[in-house]
Amino acid sequence: MERVGYFNGQIGCVDEMMIPLCDRSVFFGDAVYEAVLVLNKKAYTLEAHLDRLYSSCALTEISFDMTRDELKSEIAKVIDASEGDTTMLYIQVSRGKAPRKHEYPKDARPNLIMSVTPVKLPPADKRASLFSTEDLRFQYCNIKTVNLLPNVFAAQRATAAGATEALLHRGERVTEAAHSSILMLKDGALVMPPLDNLILPSITRAVVKRLCEENGIPTESRIITVDELMAADEILLCSTTKNVICVFEIDGNAVGGKDRALATRIQALFHEDIYRETGVRL
Amino acid sequence: MERVGYFNGQIGCVDEMMIPLCDRSVFFGDAVYEAVLVLNKKAYTLEAHLDRLYSSCALTEISFDMTRDELKSEIAKVIDASEGDTTMLYIQVSRGKAPRKHEYPKDARPNLIMSVTPVKLPPADKRASLFSTEDLRFQYCNIKTVNLLPNVFAAQRATAAGATEALLHRGERVTEAAHSSILMLKDGALVMPPLDNLILPSITRAVVKRLCEENGIPTESRIITVDELMAADEILLCSTTKNVICVFEIDGNAVGGKDRALATRIQALFHEDIYRETGVRL
Repeated sequence: MERVGYFNGQIGCVDEMMIPLCDRSVFFGDAVYEAVLVLNKKAYTLEAHLDRLYSSCALTEISFDMTRDELKSEIAKVIDASEGDTTMLYIQVSRGKAPRKHEYPKDARPNLIMSVTPVKLPPADKRASLFSTEDLRFQYCNIKTVNLLPNVFAAQRATAAGATEALLHRGERVTEAAHSSILMLKDGALVMPPLDNLILPSITRAVVKRLCEENGIPTESRIITVDELMAADEILLCSTTKNVICVFEIDGNAVGGKDRALATRIQALFHEDIYRETGVRL
Repeated sequence: MERVGYFNGQIGCVDEMMIPLCDRSVFFGDAVYEAVLVLNKKAYTLEAHLDRLYSSCALTEISFDMTRDELKSEIAKVIDASEGDTTMLYIQVSRGKAPRKHEYPKDARPNLIMSVTPVKLPPADKRASLFSTEDLRFQYCNIKTVNLLPNVFAAQRATAAGATEALLHRGERVTEAAHSSILMLKDGALVMPPLDNLILPSITRAVVKRLCEENGIPTESRIITVDELMAADEILLCSTTKNVICVFEIDGNAVGGKDRALATRIQALFHEDIYRETGVRL
């Protein structure tokens, strides 16, 4: 199947599958999720994504009692049923089905949704552009929940403006993009916004950080202002379905492009890491 | 049926009904909703709720093209299929079903979910208590969307603390409750927090305001601090499924109870309004 779906053990075409109307993801966005890059049926950085999924469940107090091994076995079934050599595995755990009431239901059991669908990775030399907009999201951004309407609005506005992604900022402070994280290179170092409740702990960012540390590239975590970002040597846009690409324009102004050697080196290290784990050369 | 559900024209028991897995309410909370009190099959303040529903669609750019008359005709079918003399009509409009992607899908058509289920109104002399907690929601609170996870967290914490509802505040500023609005009586006047992007324009609040204006009770809209609320003559907690009840305790401290005459008069005016519209005396 090209677009495989999964709901609590049942597998089918995701576009035809149904879930209970009374699932709490429908009424409250009461669910957490992960998106994982799958190359030649190998899920890249799966362990890190599962760590974060279980962490999101703990932070939202969703009692997801499927063991990691059971979950990996279910994931394998969905990936097995899929076609294509470049796909995205999507995993969503809701608090379950219950009559609509804000408080956690006593008897509900979490529902597990998955899908594996084709994805098109941008080329590494893609010249990304950003559209800046105030970050109006909630203050639980460290949890990967499906309360994503502000992200939807920001992504839609960026697309309407012809940009690759939205640059979210709280006042002068850069947080992240609508569905990517933002890093910068400055004076030979990788600079990342601090991981607090205003930003998601991105897996791609964690990989880039580790690769820099392993290869003698200094890294630093600190608040980045919009002005600093505009003056960065390079700006990196990172996500599961983008990997690491460079930003060359923000709101129509040229940015980055001042340390091509380091940006290209980090991209090469990242591709090498993907190759080590999946055997696929991008 | 005691618990009626509706999905795009289909009617059944809400607990058995299914919706597409790829509905955008599931992936993004990309949907708006209303909850309406129905007494003896008459939906109280239905027109105001429909005004707000269409307004929420406009604010979220959900192209819901069902006319008001068509929608009212569908609502009538769901109410007709229901039992019970005190029920809640729930209406949810999502942006539709589409492969998961943040940006608005080009070809999706909005999906309409409804339910009518029994509800138990608290007695007018219910002594409500509040649990105060920082308001960590997004800054689109004027739109009635299903991005409600912070509301879920707050309601859950309030219940765990033995309180009726959560009192949300941004710093010193009182906004609203997890699923109710908060008004206060001070020196013979009704005082309401300003309607901006941090607060939902509550229908119950609008009715209370109108009734005060019609009956010579002064009304004022201005920022209310937590300290002011603690010192209010009376605190009113308002919602579709609570009507208007009085708060007597915040975080274990006694509050209100200093202008019983006015609070009781407002409750009586509210009950009279319900009687005028539905023929039901509460």
